[in-house]
Amino acid sequence: MTTRRSFLAGAAGALAAASLPGAGQAQTAPPEKKLGWALVGIGTLSRNQLLPALKACKNSRLAAIVTGHPEKNKPILAEFGLPETALYTYETYDQIAKNPDVDVIYIVLPNSMHAEYVIRGAKAGKHIFCEKPMANTSADCQTMIDACKAAGKKLGIGYRCQYEPFNKAAIDICRKRPYGKMKLIIADHGFNISPGHWRTDKTLAGGGPLMDIGIYSLNACRYLTGEDPVEVTAQAIFDSKDPRFNGIEESLVWTMKFPSGVLATCTTSYSAAGMSRYRVMFEHGAIDAEPATPYHGIHMRTNAGVINQPDVDQFVLEMDAFSQSVMNDSAVITPGEEGLKDMKVIEAIYKAARTGERVKV
Amino acid sequence: MTTRRSFLAGAAGALAAASLPGAGQAQTAPPEKKLGWALVGIGTLSRNQLLPALKACKNSRLAAIVTGHPEKNKPILAEFGLPETALYTYETYDQIAKNPDVDVIYIVLPNSMHAEYVIRGAKAGKHIFCEKPMANTSADCQTMIDACKAAGKKLGIGYRCQYEPFNKAAIDICRKRPYGKMKLIIADHGFNISPGHWRTDKTLAGGGPLMDIGIYSLNACRYLTGEDPVEVTAQAIFDSKDPRFNGIEESLVWTMKFPSGVLATCTTSYSAAGMSRYRVMFEHGAIDAEPATPYHGIHMRTNAGVINQPDVDQFVLEMDAFSQSVMNDSAVITPGEEGLKDMKVIEAIYKAARTGERVKV
Repeated sequence: MTTRRSFLAGAAGALAAASLPGAGQAQTAPPEKKLGWALVGIGTLSRNQLLPALKACKNSRLAAIVTGHPEKNKPILAEFGLPETALYTYETYDQIAKNPDVDVIYIVLPNSMHAEYVIRGAKAGKHIFCEKPMANTSADCQTMIDACKAAGKKLGIGYRCQYEPFNKAAIDICRKRPYGKMKLIIADHGFNISPGHWRTDKTLAGGGPLMDIGIYSLNACRYLTGEDPVEVTAQAIFDSKDPRFNGIEESLVWTMKFPSGVLATCTTSYSAAGMSRYRVMFEHGAIDAEPATPYHGIHMRTNAGVINQPDVDQFVLEMDAFSQSVMNDSAVITPGEEGLKDMKVIEAIYKAARTGERVKV
Repeated sequence: MTTRRSFLAGAAGALAAASLPGAGQAQTAPPEKKLGWALVGIGTLSRNQLLPALKACKNSRLAAIVTGHPEKNKPILAEFGLPETALYTYETYDQIAKNPDVDVIYIVLPNSMHAEYVIRGAKAGKHIFCEKPMANTSADCQTMIDACKAAGKKLGIGYRCQYEPFNKAAIDICRKRPYGKMKLIIADHGFNISPGHWRTDKTLAGGGPLMDIGIYSLNACRYLTGEDPVEVTAQAIFDSKDPRFNGIEESLVWTMKFPSGVLATCTTSYSAAGMSRYRVMFEHGAIDAEPATPYHGIHMRTNAGVINQPDVDQFVLEMDAFSQSVMNDSAVITPGEEGLKDMKVIEAIYKAARTGERVKV
């Protein structure tokens, strides 16, 4: 597990490094039409999901890694047939501008570091893919969007569920309305977190379970309705006696109203047993998803029966889709604006939970 | 279906009838130790559930009916071997005081009529059982409690789930905590209502789905936690364009915080497909109930597997339990105070939904 200390240590020197605009602009797609990706942050997600996925991608391949632990992660280079020059530290990160083999930078760092590394990556002349939540504040999200726009680079956010076949099938049902108008969504995501995880450090994570796992409920409500909520209410446990939760909420529940009249309730927690589900209620039927958003093993059903979809590698899909949007200069499916919208709702939810007010988004 | 007109017509004359305190006080239990029950309001619930249940009860039997449709309902008397004098109209209701065969009056009228008929029944010297929701306002609930107390009569509210084996098993698990501390409850109850039902008439029903079906979620959260919520937030669709909903909410979602730190989200609706479920989330496990509160076919499971309980007649249980509390002069399991507590929360939820504020209960 990547600790706070290691990330902070890695980030410290990098702040002093100069960005190198103008370099690395040439993105010559290799013969097999695979774009080169640099992974920034070799933690659990990179090791267990992204590196294996990059071996299976059709339009994406590993071109570089950026890590605070060069010795530990050197073997990755050999595994992927990359030269030693494909390894960067946080100190040398900006030199990636000089590496024409890198087309896309994927930011897999703690949330608080997203903004800085996205902006520096864009200044290095690379397209950027960034994990969710996009940043700790909507102001940071906007700055990130602006930086990529100014650099003429694409920005995508890692909302993998929007590339995943079951969730796409659910969205399709929501649009086609075989059960009449949509009326309610109930969405619940949480798990019982291990002590000492960086995700419980407010400085790094920006908040608690809402930022990390509750965002799956929020984003699902948005992609299922195809709308943005207009008003939220919330209640949270901010004053937990559990030593795991210092300055972040232990659990949070919230309601959302959408322009079409759909109402949603959501729960999230870092102290309850694992839960990943949503239910969409229509006039005459429902979509029931549980588990709704794991990496594998998603199960969904409607009144018509079980939804059949392939169990795929969602990271392959999201990275290849982004590579294709770069190669074709087409719209990104989950652009920076998608991350910004979620962050504005998250800020409204936190404000509602703190003040007790119903907050307009 | 009992219409608004028939109830109002029945109630009109009754207002003029004098109460007859002092009569009917003698409660001589018959040899089989069955108390005599009078059903007030022979609608769907009485016909389909309560009358059949009274044939199966061990400590309760039908002793009288009170109805606005004497001719239509006369055959019930013969079916239960009762004399013609066991039939009352709303005009003659108070004369039930003179009928020593009636020990308990069960109020099965539209919500707005509960208070009047409970109070008149208590003044007639009978113990009172009343359907939920107890009344349209907490002030009425208090008046009903006071009236029964003044008359020296017991008052019970028809929260049948608190007598039902699956829900009792769930409560037992919540108390024994095999999965650690309780953290979250998600509870959803609703259905797509037929047009013209008295339950959509605000004057009769006091509100919309929250009063009628959402109360199952609310009451479940209270009996599962064993606590009363301290703060609520809510959002509702009060301005539905659907002609079924004039002056009542179409759907409503709310959150509750309990003193122990448990957070709950609940949904209710009169326009979405049927839903009756709750999930209790603990640190290391869950109780999953779906359907959670129907008359029959309840299904519950935990991490340990399916909960096995008999599928029983819940109305037999609630009526016999009340008869026993009368015969033994013991505490009523779901007394008037239980209905009052729910109504105070319901008022807080409506206030939260109207004002946007987080409301203390």
